[in-house]
Amino acid sequence: MALKAIALNATLNRTDASASSTERMLGLVLEALEQYGVSHEIVRLADFNIMPGVTSDEGEGDDWPAIRKKLLAADILVLGTPIWLGQPSSVAKRALERMDAFLEEIDDKGRMVSYGKVGVVCVVGNEDGAHHVSAEIYQALNDVGFTIPASAVAYWVGEAMGSTNFRDLKTVPEAVAQNVVLAINAVHLASLLRKSAYPGVTSNA
Amino acid sequence: MALKAIALNATLNRTDASASSTERMLGLVLEALEQYGVSHEIVRLADFNIMPGVTSDEGEGDDWPAIRKKLLAADILVLGTPIWLGQPSSVAKRALERMDAFLEEIDDKGRMVSYGKVGVVCVVGNEDGAHHVSAEIYQALNDVGFTIPASAVAYWVGEAMGSTNFRDLKTVPEAVAQNVVLAINAVHLASLLRKSAYPGVTSNA
Amino acid sequence: MALKAIALNATLNRTDASASSTERMLGLVLEALEQYGVSHEIVRLADFNIMPGVTSDEGEGDDWPAIRKKLLAADILVLGTPIWLGQPSSVAKRALERMDAFLEEIDDKGRMVSYGKVGVVCVVGNEDGAHHVSAEIYQALNDVGFTIPASAVAYWVGEAMGSTNFRDLKTVPEAVAQNVVLAINAVHLASLLRKSAYPGVTSNA
Amino acid sequence: MALKAIALNATLNRTDASASSTERMLGLVLEALEQYGVSHEIVRLADFNIMPGVTSDEGEGDDWPAIRKKLLAADILVLGTPIWLGQPSSVAKRALERMDAFLEEIDDKGRMVSYGKVGVVCVVGNEDGAHHVSAEIYQALNDVGFTIPASAVAYWVGEAMGSTNFRDLKTVPEAVAQNVVLAINAVHLASLLRKSAYPGVTSNA
Repeated sequence: MALKAIALNATLNRTDASASSTERMLGLVLEALEQYGVSHEIVRLADFNIMPGVTSDEGEGDDWPAIRKKLLAADILVLGTPIWLGQPSSVAKRALERMDAFLEEIDDKGRMVSYGKVGVVCVVGNEDGAHHVSAEIYQALNDVGFTIPASAVAYWVGEAMGSTNFRDLKTVPEAVAQNVVLAINAVHLASLLRKSAYPGVTSNA
Repeated sequence: MALKAIALNATLNRTDASASSTERMLGLVLEALEQYGVSHEIVRLADFNIMPGVTSDEGEGDDWPAIRKKLLAADILVLGTPIWLGQPSSVAKRALERMDAFLEEIDDKGRMVSYGKVGVVCVVGNEDGAHHVSAEIYQALNDVGFTIPASAVAYWVGEAMGSTNFRDLKTVPEAVAQNVVLAINAVHLASLLRKSAYPGVTSNA
Repeated sequence: MALKAIALNATLNRTDASASSTERMLGLVLEALEQYGVSHEIVRLADFNIMPGVTSDEGEGDDWPAIRKKLLAADILVLGTPIWLGQPSSVAKRALERMDAFLEEIDDKGRMVSYGKVGVVCVVGNEDGAHHVSAEIYQALNDVGFTIPASAVAYWVGEAMGSTNFRDLKTVPEAVAQNVVLAINAVHLASLLRKSAYPGVTSNA
Repeated sequence: MALKAIALNATLNRTDASASSTERMLGLVLEALEQYGVSHEIVRLADFNIMPGVTSDEGEGDDWPAIRKKLLAADILVLGTPIWLGQPSSVAKRALERMDAFLEEIDDKGRMVSYGKVGVVCVVGNEDGAHHVSAEIYQALNDVGFTIPASAVAYWVGEAMGSTNFRDLKTVPEAVAQNVVLAINAVHLASLLRKSAYPGVTSNA
């Protein structure tokens, strides 16, 4: 059965409000994944009501449970975020907080529901911040059970204090194009982990 | 005229939902500020609809403009946040994103509306993350014009992988009590900057 | 053939100067790895002259080439560091800088010499900082080609502003003991990647 | 009496080895400071033997005590670092670790030897990382007693995955030139704090 990827777009803008630089980068990565037979879907988080909290269901009106379901059905999570003040967006942080619940959602061998899933990152900004954003997201995703393949980030930022948007670049920079092909690492790793799951540990209780 | 402080509580929970460990720490710092004659107010951000964006007014239904007004009337900002996954809360990030607008709100000497204001930080968590949270908040606040006094964070976290809440501690740990008195640094600095504002620079245009 | 692990201890102290809390944590992880048949070795970086730079050999007197050779012969890297000021040690940063050279050391399919190796992290400190330290090390290791298994950090820190050393704890806290068994994830992943290497991409030149 | 600034250049290269992009940026900031009558000196840390440790004197052969003396004689510290892997250099971290000692070097009113000094940051890199580097340095400097003026970083990085060095740019980008004049904030704040020192707190013992 084909691998599935879910992309979460953590731009601050709703789909009806504006085009998204983050969406452009996600599109490049998903296109690369598709070449290896991976099916995919993008969820623009700002279109939904993701309530603040650290549980998997915050009750009436919470759109997270439906997104979580898609996430758990996927083999690869592509988390895309813009940079604001050199840091991930509040929308990205909101989604990660909701995954905090995975820490308690474990089977009898101590494996979280997210175990075996591979996490990669897309980051775009007018300027500076991609490395730090990937650091924070790697750590948060890893804490909640994801595995991070080699060279797991695709990013673009302009020169210091620049104001160009990635969505407005006429062509995709060559460095980004070479970066995006590394999606093959996610495919390889997700494929291995699907065939051979983390064994977990039997509780010593 | 007395100095004013505004405290923003970035807990994920609304006031009607639960007590807040962050609020307890904010209370200690505000009490210390009060001893130096500083008047103060706490705004629990989760009680309001702070819309995603990077402008000072995101339109109908946006509660940020009213909070921003209080913030600009204050001399000292105390930003309090819980730790989730070792990082600041999405609610804290949301407020900081809205302050991104200050970068464009400058006078004819290049001074942002926030210049001369002093920013300090409160952080609480079950465990680990306070230093990083303060690093991110210092940088974001500094980027948007705030000045950071010596020893500008009051924090508490438990031992690694602990689960005790600060709000449930019977007594305030001695180390925290000693930490909180450093609020005097914020008072001293805010007082100096009110009397003698940053001069700014005349544009060379 | 058995998997090999190399542990780099980035304490600031030489072996002849003092016992190392980091070494204690590394010992626990290596013991766990050994139960799965992984052979191992610890290198205390402070005992060597690792010259500043970003190449694989900084010339006469540089001890990095010999350490690099061991690292490249291993399947699993365990990078252990103390926390100072909430951040990784300068000794850890020095080793990571030297791995920056891997970015240029690629084969004809774009794979760095480090591809297929698994990186995990040990962090200890008197207090606060483990999450951030792991974030920075995950990102640096991932940038230079390492794969990060689920739940890849073993850490201990005391309560906020505490001064207890991990090496002086009479018993290993239960939470740490449960944490350490997750070394099985590194073994599983390194084993998969040894049998089935990242395929890389053929240059489109 | 005129204000004094000390600039620490945390490049990985010795003076005799290569020109330094960090030094160029430090030069711009020091030139700006000089316009306000501030005297200054640059110390290239890689030229000295700064021993690993967290005390103010690590014994025979340690060059830190002499640098520390200059630092304590200055009103403004300008810490300049290159970016490697999106993070501050190991040389910068080494200097910060040595300042950890200030936490214990306090007077009878709880004020560290560094209280009243102002810290600002210069960061340069081929690409991405300046915001995070400033975040880590602000936090470390603030923890050890420094005050951070508004808009305290001067930085330059190229476009994502770029390889241009700041020292090779024919002209200083306009954005950097505008950034550098903010050195006036450091002068203003250092001047205020020299005239009116943090009062500290009388121990309640």
